[in-house]
Amino acid sequence: MYVVILAGGAGTRFWPLSRRRQPKQLMSVFGGKSMLQRTVERILPLQPRRILVVTNVLQAVETARQLEYLQDRPIDVIAEPEGRNTAPAIGLAAALIARHDPAAMMVVLPADHYIRDEEEFRTVLLRAQAAARQGALMMLGIRPDRPETGYGYIEAGKNMRADGTYPVTRFAEKPPLAKALEFLAAGNFFWNSGMFVWQAGSILAEMEKHMPELHTGLMQLDYSGEALVPAGLLPQVAALYRGIKSQSIDYGVMEKAKNVGVIPGEFGWSDVGSWRAISEVIAPDEAGNVLIEAGNPVLIDSRGCLVHGGGKLVALIGAEDLIVINTGDALLVCAKERSQEVKQVVEELERRGLAEYL
Amino acid sequence: MYVVILAGGAGTRFWPLSRRRQPKQLMSVFGGKSMLQRTVERILPLQPRRILVVTNVLQAVETARQLEYLQDRPIDVIAEPEGRNTAPAIGLAAALIARHDPAAMMVVLPADHYIRDEEEFRTVLLRAQAAARQGALMMLGIRPDRPETGYGYIEAGKNMRADGTYPVTRFAEKPPLAKALEFLAAGNFFWNSGMFVWQAGSILAEMEKHMPELHTGLMQLDYSGEALVPAGLLPQVAALYRGIKSQSIDYGVMEKAKNVGVIPGEFGWSDVGSWRAISEVIAPDEAGNVLIEAGNPVLIDSRGCLVHGGGKLVALIGAEDLIVINTGDALLVCAKERSQEVKQVVEELERRGLAEYL
Repeated sequence: MYVVILAGGAGTRFWPLSRRRQPKQLMSVFGGKSMLQRTVERILPLQPRRILVVTNVLQAVETARQLEYLQDRPIDVIAEPEGRNTAPAIGLAAALIARHDPAAMMVVLPADHYIRDEEEFRTVLLRAQAAARQGALMMLGIRPDRPETGYGYIEAGKNMRADGTYPVTRFAEKPPLAKALEFLAAGNFFWNSGMFVWQAGSILAEMEKHMPELHTGLMQLDYSGEALVPAGLLPQVAALYRGIKSQSIDYGVMEKAKNVGVIPGEFGWSDVGSWRAISEVIAPDEAGNVLIEAGNPVLIDSRGCLVHGGGKLVALIGAEDLIVINTGDALLVCAKERSQEVKQVVEELERRGLAEYL
Repeated sequence: MYVVILAGGAGTRFWPLSRRRQPKQLMSVFGGKSMLQRTVERILPLQPRRILVVTNVLQAVETARQLEYLQDRPIDVIAEPEGRNTAPAIGLAAALIARHDPAAMMVVLPADHYIRDEEEFRTVLLRAQAAARQGALMMLGIRPDRPETGYGYIEAGKNMRADGTYPVTRFAEKPPLAKALEFLAAGNFFWNSGMFVWQAGSILAEMEKHMPELHTGLMQLDYSGEALVPAGLLPQVAALYRGIKSQSIDYGVMEKAKNVGVIPGEFGWSDVGSWRAISEVIAPDEAGNVLIEAGNPVLIDSRGCLVHGGGKLVALIGAEDLIVINTGDALLVCAKERSQEVKQVVEELERRGLAEYL
C-alpha cells in the first residue's frame, strides 16, 4: 500500500494564520500539530510501504521541515512546479508507484481534512482496499448531514455489494440548494471526500482512456533510478506541466470511468473549509469557546468564540460567536457566521499590493 | 497662577493598555500624546508660573520621561511615597505654593480627563480665577447630560452671581438613579469635575478648619530652599503620610467649607472612565469605528468598534459594538456596553498571581 497525500492547497480562508507559504494544511491549529502532520500520522498505523506527499515549490521547504520529525518513516516529498489541480498530481504519483508495482494499492488523501475517529477511518480504508483489489476505483463517501451546496455529490446504486460498497451511478458537483435537499432526502447520495483507493494500474488505465494527453506525457517521463521519486524528475515534470491544463481527477477521470465504487465513511469527517468549520471540530469548553494559543484565558460571560491568541493572554467579556485570530502581524475579528468572507479580506490586501500580509 | 496636575491615578479600567506602571493618564491613545501630556499642553497657553505634577513613586520615572520634551517649561514633578487620595496631595501642593505666595492662584486639574474645546476651557479657568481672587473655592461644574450614578453632584444656588458663577449649596456623591434623574431634571445640579481654582492660602485656611491634623503636619515640614519642591522634602512627606489617612478633598474640605462656588464649564468634558467612553470622545469613521494603531485596516460591514491594533494590520468582518485591545502580551475582546467589567479581568489576574500582566 502506497499513500499519496495531496498537500499543495493554497487557500485564503484561514487568513491571517494561513499565508501563501503557510496554507491551511501546514497551519498548526489543533493543539500543536499541523493538519498535514496529522494526516501522515493518521495513516502510519497501516504501515504503508511509502507515503508520497505532493506539494508545490512555494511550500516545499516548510512541508519538508514539518515532516523532519518523521524522518525514519518512508516518506517522500515531491514539489510540483506549479499546480494543475488533482488529475496531474494523482497521475504522476500513480506512474511513480506503478513503475515499481502496477498492482500496488494506492490511497489518495487530501492533507487538510479533519477526521475524528481515526480507528474507524483506517478500517474503512482497509475495506476499500478489498474492493479496489478487484479493479474498482473506490471513493470514500461521506453521508450528508446538511444540504451543502459547496461540495460534490455522488449517487450510490441501490444495491449494496457484499463488501458493503456501492457502485457509483452519478456525479453532481456543487448542486443548487433544491437539488442538495433532494439528495439529502434520497439517502443514497454521498459527499465526495476527495479520498480514493485503487490500484495504481487501475487509475492509469482509466486515465489512458479519458485523459490520453496527460497519460502519454506521464509515460514519456524518464523514471530511471531506484528511488520512488527519481532525481532529475522535476525538470521533466515542469516541462510536462507547461503543456497541460488544470483538471480535477473527478471531472477528468472519475465521472467518465466504469467500475467506480463508493464506500460510506462514518468517521466524523470535515474538510474544515472555514474558521467556523474549525471551531466545530475542536472540542469547545462548556460555553462553546475554543481557545488556541491563548495563555491564561479570562472569560467573562462569553459564548461560541474561536480565539487564536498567538500566545498572548486572552480576555473575553460578553463576546459571542466571534472568531478572533491574532498573529504576529495581523488581527482578524469576524462574526462567526461570516467566516467565508475572510477571502474578501485577502482579495482586498492583494488589490492594495500588501504582499507581506498574503 | 500655579497649576497642580494630579497624575497619581492607577486605574485598572484600561487594561490591557494601562498597567500599574502605565496607568490611564500615561497611556497614549488619542493619536500619540498621552492624557498627561495633553493636560499639560492644554494649560500652557495661560502661561502658568509653575506646573506641579503630583504622581507617585511607581509612575514617577515614566511621568518624568513623558514630560522631558517640555523641559524648557516651568514643570516640577513630585512623587508621593504612596497615595492618600486628593486631600493630602492638594494640601502639600498648596503648602509649597503658599510658601512663595499665599495669594497665588492655584488651579487643580486631574491628568486623565478629556476636554474637547480647549479654548473655552481656558476661558472658564480665567473666569473662575476672577471669582477665586475674592476668596472663593471655585469648582468647575459640568452640566449633566445623563443620570450618571458614578459621579459626584453639586447643587448650585438659584442666584447666579454677576460673574456667572453660583454658590454651592449641596454635595451629593454617587446618588442612586432616582436622585440622579431628579438632579438632571432640576437643572441646577452639576457634576463635580475634580477641577478647582482657588488661592493657595484659601484652601489651606479651610484645611486648617476641617482637616487640622493634615494641616498641622503640612505646616511642620521643612520647606527651606529656593526650589518650589525643595530637595529633602520627600522623606518628610513619607513620614507625614504614614501617619495620615486617605481622604478626598471633596469630603475632607469642600463639603464643609463656606464660600464654595461653581462655574459651569461647557467645553466638552469627559473623564473617559472606560474604553467605551474613550470610543465616544474620538471622532469615529462614518460607520462609528475607531481604530488606533491599526495598520491598513480592512473593514467589512462593521460598526461601532474601538480597536487598538498594537501596530498590526486589523481586519473586521461583521463586527459590531466591540472593543478589541491588542497589546504586546495580551488581547482583550469586550462587548462595548460591558467595558466597565474590564476591572474584573484585572482582579482575576491578581487572584491568579499573574503580576506580569498587571
